[in-house]
Amino acid sequence: MVVELISVGTELLMGNIVNTNAAYLSEKCVQLGLLVYHEITVGDNQERLKNVLQTAADRADILIISGGLGPTQDDLTKETVAEVFGKKLLEDAHTRKRIEEYFERKGDGSVIPENNWKQAEIIEGSHVLDNNNGTAPGLITETDRGVKVVLLPGPPNELIPMFEHQVLPYLRDLCPYSIYSVMVKVCGMGESAVEMQLLDLIEEQDNPTIATYAKTGEVHIRVSARASSDSEAKKLMAPVLTKIMRKLSGHIYSMDEKETLEEHIVALLKKYDLTLAAAESLTGGMFSSRIVNAAGASDVLKGSFITYTNKAKRKMVGVKKSTLYKHTAVSKETAEEMAKGAAAELGADIGVALTGIAGPDGGTPEQPVGLVYIACLAKGKVTVKKYQFQGNRQKVREQAVVAALNLVRKCVVSRYA
Amino acid sequence: MVVELISVGTELLMGNIVNTNAAYLSEKCVQLGLLVYHEITVGDNQERLKNVLQTAADRADILIISGGLGPTQDDLTKETVAEVFGKKLLEDAHTRKRIEEYFERKGDGSVIPENNWKQAEIIEGSHVLDNNNGTAPGLITETDRGVKVVLLPGPPNELIPMFEHQVLPYLRDLCPYSIYSVMVKVCGMGESAVEMQLLDLIEEQDNPTIATYAKTGEVHIRVSARASSDSEAKKLMAPVLTKIMRKLSGHIYSMDEKETLEEHIVALLKKYDLTLAAAESLTGGMFSSRIVNAAGASDVLKGSFITYTNKAKRKMVGVKKSTLYKHTAVSKETAEEMAKGAAAELGADIGVALTGIAGPDGGTPEQPVGLVYIACLAKGKVTVKKYQFQGNRQKVREQAVVAALNLVRKCVVSRYA
Repeated sequence: MVVELISVGTELLMGNIVNTNAAYLSEKCVQLGLLVYHEITVGDNQERLKNVLQTAADRADILIISGGLGPTQDDLTKETVAEVFGKKLLEDAHTRKRIEEYFERKGDGSVIPENNWKQAEIIEGSHVLDNNNGTAPGLITETDRGVKVVLLPGPPNELIPMFEHQVLPYLRDLCPYSIYSVMVKVCGMGESAVEMQLLDLIEEQDNPTIATYAKTGEVHIRVSARASSDSEAKKLMAPVLTKIMRKLSGHIYSMDEKETLEEHIVALLKKYDLTLAAAESLTGGMFSSRIVNAAGASDVLKGSFITYTNKAKRKMVGVKKSTLYKHTAVSKETAEEMAKGAAAELGADIGVALTGIAGPDGGTPEQPVGLVYIACLAKGKVTVKKYQFQGNRQKVREQAVVAALNLVRKCVVSRYA
Repeated sequence: MVVELISVGTELLMGNIVNTNAAYLSEKCVQLGLLVYHEITVGDNQERLKNVLQTAADRADILIISGGLGPTQDDLTKETVAEVFGKKLLEDAHTRKRIEEYFERKGDGSVIPENNWKQAEIIEGSHVLDNNNGTAPGLITETDRGVKVVLLPGPPNELIPMFEHQVLPYLRDLCPYSIYSVMVKVCGMGESAVEMQLLDLIEEQDNPTIATYAKTGEVHIRVSARASSDSEAKKLMAPVLTKIMRKLSGHIYSMDEKETLEEHIVALLKKYDLTLAAAESLTGGMFSSRIVNAAGASDVLKGSFITYTNKAKRKMVGVKKSTLYKHTAVSKETAEEMAKGAAAELGADIGVALTGIAGPDGGTPEQPVGLVYIACLAKGKVTVKKYQFQGNRQKVREQAVVAALNLVRKCVVSRYA
């Protein structure tokens, strides 16, 4: 079955935002065994959207359209889809009530803007997809032309949960065979290195298929098997998975599709009843914030210190003046004292410290931009690693955070498991 | 003049990579006053690419095609463009020499793979765009149909410098008019509310045009005027800009395209020679990390405390036990003590505190998920605001961070300006 992805939004064509939805939806469709041949972005323009819809309906079985469901004048997706496929728009009482409730929950007494009521209208005969993170409902419409049309709101935080919980089961039912897929999540290895390791498997792949996805500091490897039943697919999968696990062993942190690296770390610390404290310099709280991304982080994170200046390193986590003077703030020694200090101050089992040069300024020939020291104190022993990251300020900081998460994982596994 | 962007690559349709090239090229085209109506992604498939090229050539003046210029069998872009527009492929001696030099520079003595010579072939009559970061040259071809075709390599580190230095000047010469555009950045108002305020301007817009972009906690408004000269365009812009500024006054934080909210806050604090310290609970370092996003944050941020537990609130920033007992951790009183404590501990002028319930657990009827208190101490006075945010854990935390940045801005402006 062929899917065409249509992204609607002048802001995409103006380049104001990067189309991450297209990558997300592509990946999900491929995982379901659906074929994606075209992805097209069109502005909030009724004539052009009409033409795009006509063309797509001629060559695809399912159209997944995102964006243009907002409350404003230029949000025209629903109206245009209705027109192209000869359907009426009708007010949906359920959706109207949900919009009221959404504004009530906001609780700031604001009057619902008149234009928001437009969002309560749905294409006749559609299946409504509730939006738990905004006011625009999604829709699934089966048209007289036999084409199925899925409409989704543009903001990723609305689109992703809606797709995950309401569209995925619908699409899965349409697929004529079972797809079983596993995501192998790897940390501390680059994409080329992973591909080199798996080269023979990748070259001879057929069913299961193997695809690698580079994330910041991580590589995710999707292995998908297609068969007439789930158990058949799992049987096809097993030997390939075993080979991958053997080749990448120590670098695999999870094979759970939904588990993020930070969730894995929090679960690992909980498992061994360990608490964590951090001292962050160049990352400025980004490491701790990643930990807090995981619900339940409060059982694990005692607290952290953002010691962005030398003074803060001394006052907050007791780095010695002589250490800063002799070795500078970006050194093995400072990182070690930061990790020890953070753990001691808060009585945590694990202490993590990050110090480095994020750039764009501050680099020297001896300490170039991208130089980062990460320390982890676990079971009384501090491990310090030196990294040289590439990329801009944001990229250097993100890579440092992932490296620190991975270092915690390795230290905990090697000393407590 | 209408540009169509065509991205070629099965890896895009598999969702393996996010198409950042499209956003980059869109933004550049818009800034040149070129119109982008469609952006399409197609796999490495000759038949489908042919159809896409035919359709695009019928509706656009310039095609900018990225990807599919690699050395492998499935890289077919150049061959397909040549076929569609009835041109031959010829070996280019200059490009062949550059490929040799590229491998020499690599200096690892590796033999040039036979298939790399394919990259020395160019479409007859093309203008060659040298690639300083890879082996695939770009091309500009003027076809007999009057359509101009620009071919670029897919990797962003090859595409961006090639576009910047070689394609931009070419496109600029094609543009018959000047475009002047301003980005008005608003904080503390939702997109619908902004549009309600600007409704008359949006409805009567023609030249300049007005477009709004919702970001988390922010709305960006692009105003673009088109005229025969830069000064004419600016003249057209002025009255519209004045009206927008009058309608949104206190909510506009910047009119600088490149300035982010955190860069604005850091610049504002620098301007009044103020330092900052934060105590973060639900955001877990995300606020401070946003501040550190801005290069030069070290002049401003003294340090921060991530006080994720009650104990940390007491120990790190001196929140009173009785306050936590009487009012709970998520209260006006706790936020106030956190802000005062953070500033006092580090001797900062401004103290910021965030405490709240990010969810998914921890909510009660009295303190529902999304309830957040944000405090800002400035000039000895603490302002505490109560918010009720919608959305998932991540979204609640992101909104809290933007609200805190905005509160700092308002407190500094009202007390120091």
